[in-house]
Amino acid sequence: MSTNLPSEHPSEDHFEGLYVADLGEQQLLQRVQRFCPANLVGDDAAVLIPRAGYSLVVTADMLVDGVHFATGYAATGCVTTEQGATGQDTPGKCTTSPQDVGWRGTAANLSDLAAMGAQPLGITVSLGLPPTTPVQWLDELYEGITGCLSLYQAPILGGDLCRSPILTLSITALGEVLLGQQFLRSTAQVGDAIVVTGVHGASRAGLELLLNPEWGQDLSPQAQSLLKRAHQRPTPRLDVPPLLRQLDPTARITGMDSSDGLADAVLQICRASGVGARLNRDRLPIPEVLRATQSLSEQTLIHWVLYGGEDFELILCLPQPLAEALVSQLGQQAVIIGKIVTDPTVRLVDEGGQSLGAPLSLEQGFQHFS
Amino acid sequence: MSTNLPSEHPSEDHFEGLYVADLGEQQLLQRVQRFCPANLVGDDAAVLIPRAGYSLVVTADMLVDGVHFATGYAATGCVTTEQGATGQDTPGKCTTSPQDVGWRGTAANLSDLAAMGAQPLGITVSLGLPPTTPVQWLDELYEGITGCLSLYQAPILGGDLCRSPILTLSITALGEVLLGQQFLRSTAQVGDAIVVTGVHGASRAGLELLLNPEWGQDLSPQAQSLLKRAHQRPTPRLDVPPLLRQLDPTARITGMDSSDGLADAVLQICRASGVGARLNRDRLPIPEVLRATQSLSEQTLIHWVLYGGEDFELILCLPQPLAEALVSQLGQQAVIIGKIVTDPTVRLVDEGGQSLGAPLSLEQGFQHFS
Repeated sequence: MSTNLPSEHPSEDHFEGLYVADLGEQQLLQRVQRFCPANLVGDDAAVLIPRAGYSLVVTADMLVDGVHFATGYAATGCVTTEQGATGQDTPGKCTTSPQDVGWRGTAANLSDLAAMGAQPLGITVSLGLPPTTPVQWLDELYEGITGCLSLYQAPILGGDLCRSPILTLSITALGEVLLGQQFLRSTAQVGDAIVVTGVHGASRAGLELLLNPEWGQDLSPQAQSLLKRAHQRPTPRLDVPPLLRQLDPTARITGMDSSDGLADAVLQICRASGVGARLNRDRLPIPEVLRATQSLSEQTLIHWVLYGGEDFELILCLPQPLAEALVSQLGQQAVIIGKIVTDPTVRLVDEGGQSLGAPLSLEQGFQHFS
Repeated sequence: MSTNLPSEHPSEDHFEGLYVADLGEQQLLQRVQRFCPANLVGDDAAVLIPRAGYSLVVTADMLVDGVHFATGYAATGCVTTEQGATGQDTPGKCTTSPQDVGWRGTAANLSDLAAMGAQPLGITVSLGLPPTTPVQWLDELYEGITGCLSLYQAPILGGDLCRSPILTLSITALGEVLLGQQFLRSTAQVGDAIVVTGVHGASRAGLELLLNPEWGQDLSPQAQSLLKRAHQRPTPRLDVPPLLRQLDPTARITGMDSSDGLADAVLQICRASGVGARLNRDRLPIPEVLRATQSLSEQTLIHWVLYGGEDFELILCLPQPLAEALVSQLGQQAVIIGKIVTDPTVRLVDEGGQSLGAPLSLEQGFQHFS
């Protein structure tokens, strides 16, 4: 299976200046089908042949304008009463280009596949569109989606287009993992090392820069660009599962992605596994560019690292030797931040193992409905 | 795999009177996970083991409050400016119970699987919810979803819950079909008989009764109830593919479902196959209860039968002997309405083969974005 690349779909054509309402349904469908392999769309459903010896992995995510991103293209005034993804009011603020909406929506789903130890087979894309959506916006959304998918040779397997007062993107991703080798949340054991890939809090800082350009004045232009990119173009860690399986084809691997934050992932794993965790405060994966800034307090920095969310990295609980082997392979890209313990709380500790503050809790993270 | 039945989830509990905004995200997730098999949810993704010798079939549909159904629960005034699914203005009219929204959304997806000749493996359910949605509404939606799924022992494979100003239901269905035995749109051949299952126009008439209770006064209460049920609780024709394969395990079968109308399905098949069709006006599958009513003109009746949509039956192009064998098996449940011809138009004809009126066209059906 292959997918068309964005460069094959220049948006400088006769659809420029048109809105979704100007096109008939058939024209719209034909327009988005250009982004899908011809052998997979055009029927009531797509047909795939699963590989023998693999399990199928299925995950879904929905993103809503004004909640998870902000386009300014809502047909009604709905978005202006909504809160931004991190709890700030973002009336009318447009933080996300269509390419970024498509990329992030895709990356979020592929990140869930990575968290299961799987590799992507493809995604379905369902879209609710206000009639006032520019056709060019739609093209650019699909460019973002296929741009992210093309890194993994994964196609769009069809989907749906419908009218909606609010721009809504719903993706279901399919992946495959060798039979019985999926990573679960419920298999962490006391003594496991907790490995975190990448840095955390960068996406949250990038969002702050986008929402509030006065913030972060002491950050270099390069640092600002890096943080914004972390928010706009996250990379799912699909590189990590094959590496782990190369190091140990049959090890028990416990994992989650950090889409809802580092602390959330550790808490969810601990709850599902009936264990607790100690995280070393000094080993938290703070983005290098944020360590020196005067623009935020130590307390806010730690909060962003633990609860910021949307870094789309992996939080893994591994037997100590495998953890060390992984960190040695990934270098700067991974760190052992703590260990699984019997006591069912999750706590920050200092180098001496002394508890720092109250246990971490899910309530401190982002609540989608509050 | 098994799914819990609605009766195991009484909604008379301590959540009565509460709204989605009153529950934390974890509580909401736990609440809907009761409707999913425990071995499939609770991780970042669900894991299935596909059967050897089968292809995987994937389809997706999105339903939006005020466009595809009407709850009256929108957080904002968005729905009042929207048009109903059939083009009427339906400000504030509540035509769909939560159970029906769930049932119809599920049936629409399973119908796409039936149109491919597949059987369901399960669905993902993503929901955009206004914070003002009653928790009981959410429970009843899932009762409708699992009610429909339980007819086929298909489970919910997870999904997503998020906040949205407008109630949005996005379903992706997975199915399986024996390798190489899927039904396509592009394989109709000149001389094929066109078989239609069930009746058409019943869902459209049912919607009319729900939107406009003054209409259809001369229909008996039983007839009215039958038509409303056709709209609220359509049954996907998953019974037909196994029957066809029993009659002929390897025949070339061309098919689509009639979700967008009988005429739309014939037109789409003809376009994809590079052929045309002649449909016998006197064999159109008109619901018996509508034949005698004075409440609608002959012209409107034919329009509803051809373009009404949402009957979720199958339109099949089959070699004549297989068509006859199927109709003989299904009895009143299927009829040969015409044949595939070389001339690329789709026309109604009389018993003598004489054309009646202009060719049918997609433009006469429902346009989702107009």
